[in-house]
Amino acid sequence: MKQQPSTEPTASSWRSRLHEIIFESNSDAGKAFDVTLLAFIIISIVVVMLDSVAELHARYGRIFLILEWFFTGVFTIEYLLRLICIRKPWKYMFSVLGIIDLLAIVPSYLSFVYIGSQSLLVFRALRLLRVFRIFRLVHFLSEMRFLSVAILNSIRKISIFILFVLSAVVILGSIIYLVEGPSNGFTSIPQSVYWAIVTITTVGYGDIAPATPLGKFIASFIMLLGYGIIAVPTGIVTTEMALAAKSHKPHTDACPSCGREGHDHDARFCKYCGAQL
Amino acid sequence: MKQQPSTEPTASSWRSRLHEIIFESNSDAGKAFDVTLLAFIIISIVVVMLDSVAELHARYGRIFLILEWFFTGVFTIEYLLRLICIRKPWKYMFSVLGIIDLLAIVPSYLSFVYIGSQSLLVFRALRLLRVFRIFRLVHFLSEMRFLSVAILNSIRKISIFILFVLSAVVILGSIIYLVEGPSNGFTSIPQSVYWAIVTITTVGYGDIAPATPLGKFIASFIMLLGYGIIAVPTGIVTTEMALAAKSHKPHTDACPSCGREGHDHDARFCKYCGAQL
Amino acid sequence: MKQQPSTEPTASSWRSRLHEIIFESNSDAGKAFDVTLLAFIIISIVVVMLDSVAELHARYGRIFLILEWFFTGVFTIEYLLRLICIRKPWKYMFSVLGIIDLLAIVPSYLSFVYIGSQSLLVFRALRLLRVFRIFRLVHFLSEMRFLSVAILNSIRKISIFILFVLSAVVILGSIIYLVEGPSNGFTSIPQSVYWAIVTITTVGYGDIAPATPLGKFIASFIMLLGYGIIAVPTGIVTTEMALAAKSHKPHTDACPSCGREGHDHDARFCKYCGAQL
Amino acid sequence: MKQQPSTEPTASSWRSRLHEIIFESNSDAGKAFDVTLLAFIIISIVVVMLDSVAELHARYGRIFLILEWFFTGVFTIEYLLRLICIRKPWKYMFSVLGIIDLLAIVPSYLSFVYIGSQSLLVFRALRLLRVFRIFRLVHFLSEMRFLSVAILNSIRKISIFILFVLSAVVILGSIIYLVEGPSNGFTSIPQSVYWAIVTITTVGYGDIAPATPLGKFIASFIMLLGYGIIAVPTGIVTTEMALAAKSHKPHTDACPSCGREGHDHDARFCKYCGAQL
Repeated sequence: MKQQPSTEPTASSWRSRLHEIIFESNSDAGKAFDVTLLAFIIISIVVVMLDSVAELHARYGRIFLILEWFFTGVFTIEYLLRLICIRKPWKYMFSVLGIIDLLAIVPSYLSFVYIGSQSLLVFRALRLLRVFRIFRLVHFLSEMRFLSVAILNSIRKISIFILFVLSAVVILGSIIYLVEGPSNGFTSIPQSVYWAIVTITTVGYGDIAPATPLGKFIASFIMLLGYGIIAVPTGIVTTEMALAAKSHKPHTDACPSCGREGHDHDARFCKYCGAQL
Repeated sequence: MKQQPSTEPTASSWRSRLHEIIFESNSDAGKAFDVTLLAFIIISIVVVMLDSVAELHARYGRIFLILEWFFTGVFTIEYLLRLICIRKPWKYMFSVLGIIDLLAIVPSYLSFVYIGSQSLLVFRALRLLRVFRIFRLVHFLSEMRFLSVAILNSIRKISIFILFVLSAVVILGSIIYLVEGPSNGFTSIPQSVYWAIVTITTVGYGDIAPATPLGKFIASFIMLLGYGIIAVPTGIVTTEMALAAKSHKPHTDACPSCGREGHDHDARFCKYCGAQL
Repeated sequence: MKQQPSTEPTASSWRSRLHEIIFESNSDAGKAFDVTLLAFIIISIVVVMLDSVAELHARYGRIFLILEWFFTGVFTIEYLLRLICIRKPWKYMFSVLGIIDLLAIVPSYLSFVYIGSQSLLVFRALRLLRVFRIFRLVHFLSEMRFLSVAILNSIRKISIFILFVLSAVVILGSIIYLVEGPSNGFTSIPQSVYWAIVTITTVGYGDIAPATPLGKFIASFIMLLGYGIIAVPTGIVTTEMALAAKSHKPHTDACPSCGREGHDHDARFCKYCGAQL
Repeated sequence: MKQQPSTEPTASSWRSRLHEIIFESNSDAGKAFDVTLLAFIIISIVVVMLDSVAELHARYGRIFLILEWFFTGVFTIEYLLRLICIRKPWKYMFSVLGIIDLLAIVPSYLSFVYIGSQSLLVFRALRLLRVFRIFRLVHFLSEMRFLSVAILNSIRKISIFILFVLSAVVILGSIIYLVEGPSNGFTSIPQSVYWAIVTITTVGYGDIAPATPLGKFIASFIMLLGYGIIAVPTGIVTTEMALAAKSHKPHTDACPSCGREGHDHDARFCKYCGAQL
């Protein structure tokens, strides 16, 4: 891939330099920034998670709080730097990435405002929102694009499949509700549908399980159904991926006449302009 | 797709118009009708489900009853309109869709007739049949046809697979019944076969679990078997879908010059001889 | 498929006729025999299964016993007829099918011999052996051949995969045994390996579950491993099936020169004799 | 495959012979050595596993100890022989296989040194390390290479998938922690994330299960998500395997006349120009 010349009409050179470090990952400085940011995101999530463990909170609560404010500070500075060095700050602020970046810092400040109130649960809830920082990892998922093409192509077919599964689950849940009844734990249709989902997806908690012979027979049917139809989404995704891989792999030889790529292996003439390859 | 001319020999124009709205979804009115109907079906199912929750029934039972009769009324009118505007009402009435449409409204009226009787359980059962309204969603599943071709082609092979799984489950269930015995919860062969299905489909409720070392060894074998043979239906469906996708994708336009087929959608020139397509 | 001429050097015509009915399924009589036998096998298995349920045995035990002896009689007669009408009885007796057919009737007679003894458990065990009659269904699995080619080709690769899973399960089971210890239900390495199999195959009974944080971390790793590597056998079988379907599907156009089939779609010359197609 | 001539510049012929037996498996002696070693490894692992069962240890502890020292002796001799007959002993010692071979014998000797101490747990831990002998089976996995090419090609895409699953699990675990709370067993975020992994991988122990309606709704979503996205790694691996199988199968022999490749194994004439291959 050729290095695209950085002949952008920048007002100041330091903003251009900052933009390169923060938004691009070609240069060494840009890579170092990315790796540091990735480490910070992961550590801050781990801190939030550990802080929720009662024992660890009692022992290391102070350290977690300091670390928490340290990360909030770092992410705030980074957010401001992004706003400064980008040419269209508003566009970034209302983009998905911009909102995620903001959501990663806002809860900490909100917890500061609400600290006088006694609603500790809400307070904790706000702080927990910080785990949404994990979404920031999308910055690093450029690799995902290849996969997502195949997955997006399958979405329509898979949603029909999900619709079918949901219909099956509602009907089978209703039948099992009639068969087993509230005395065996199937207290309502939603509860029975929940059980049917637990069963058809082969999760099988066992918190609710059929007790009557007929209920067990129906349950067996649901299990075998779930075991069999898992093949459908797998088949859809595999077929789409094979097609994506096929149209992705071909020789990168461009047509000497029109310059377009994507010709089959056995093509002797460009399929776009008819020139001999 | 070309708009097929509506030059049907209709007796009255309003019946023709009604037919277009109800049975076809090309026009704006037809689409609006479809979306409204879909929303009504889903909401009516949700109402039936929520009504089965004891707490909600106690609090909102009256509202649910009113909604229930509202939906029954709407679906009854819709059913009558379908009968009126279609040319062969009897054919529709005895088609699968017609029977489902009827099943969606009959239970409510039956509950009205039986209201004096004390058999509340049967009464509830009749009302629950209304969840079969969900089948009416098939009206919207024209997309499903592509999938169903591949699935229908696999049915024969998959039923052999299911036959194999059922045989394995009967044999393994009988063995585990001999090994574990009634004292560990394996009270009969059907019960043990049920356990074997729970295990081979990797559901694993845990309501019955082997206790002896030999039983655990056999259970491990069943699990690994179930874990491995899931590959078989998946392989069948994937292969069929790949074949369906292959025979579906390329234009069947042959090259006018050399007569060869298999050109991509975006091909303007034959890739074999270079002639214009 | 051409009807192969029945010019066999038979001693008597009725034996030839009987052989046709029992061993072949081309004629109407042969088909009727096959369907009747299939029904008898399935019903006899269902009877054995129902007889193991204590309640049903108490109520219908007599009927089950009569049915049992009826089926034993029928299968004995059928076994003798097979021996009579086949040309090489010894070869059939020691074939897999012959042994299965014998095993389907022997246990009933054995239970008759041992009826005087007081060892009820052994007695019950003998009677249960009758469920192995299900193996007789292999008579009807000629369809399975297409599948089995793909599966047999995958066997070698899949056994390596199973070997890998078993190694992983032994190592991870040993580690979890050290981490959790007997107090949390991981009483020995075999027990822990059993748990690891329950977990890696995503069965998850929940009869044993990790209690320590480190144990849960390792369990999470095993689950994600099991969730991911299910792709491997699936990939193997799918690839083999695709290959089998490919080499199975091709145009049935035979070479006009040498008459061999199986040419690719884009072949212009016979790949065996070089003649133009 | 041609027998490669053993014209190595060996100092002594017996070392050359020993090298052939131990490191190569072409000759009869080499095969016998491999099979014996494989049997010894498996038996020694079974002994370690059985010894961990309290009952068996009490009864057969002495026999297990003797067998243990027998295997340790055998593996020590084998390790020394490997060091003697190889030309670069240091390279072997610090290779993965060499370290595994050493790890298989060291713990037994260490247990001898520590026998006076009371730290029985550490003692047992050291002995348990011997199950790592199972890694020695990699000596026999030359078949694995074909599989590993496809798997290695998929690794990058699958790690993105795993990253996605881990992110989903952290977010969903945090949400369920807020919804269900400590009173229903969701005592901390790590605990809730553990539950989310148990659920998304369809393992479903049932040791922790949602109790509130909203929790069950979220759980249903996680189950359906896990049930659906299993298709992604399967699709990746299948596609890679199909590509590997494709590029593996056809002879790379080009047609001597037109130079085109991709001929089948049984092709004797070029399918494009008809020239003899």
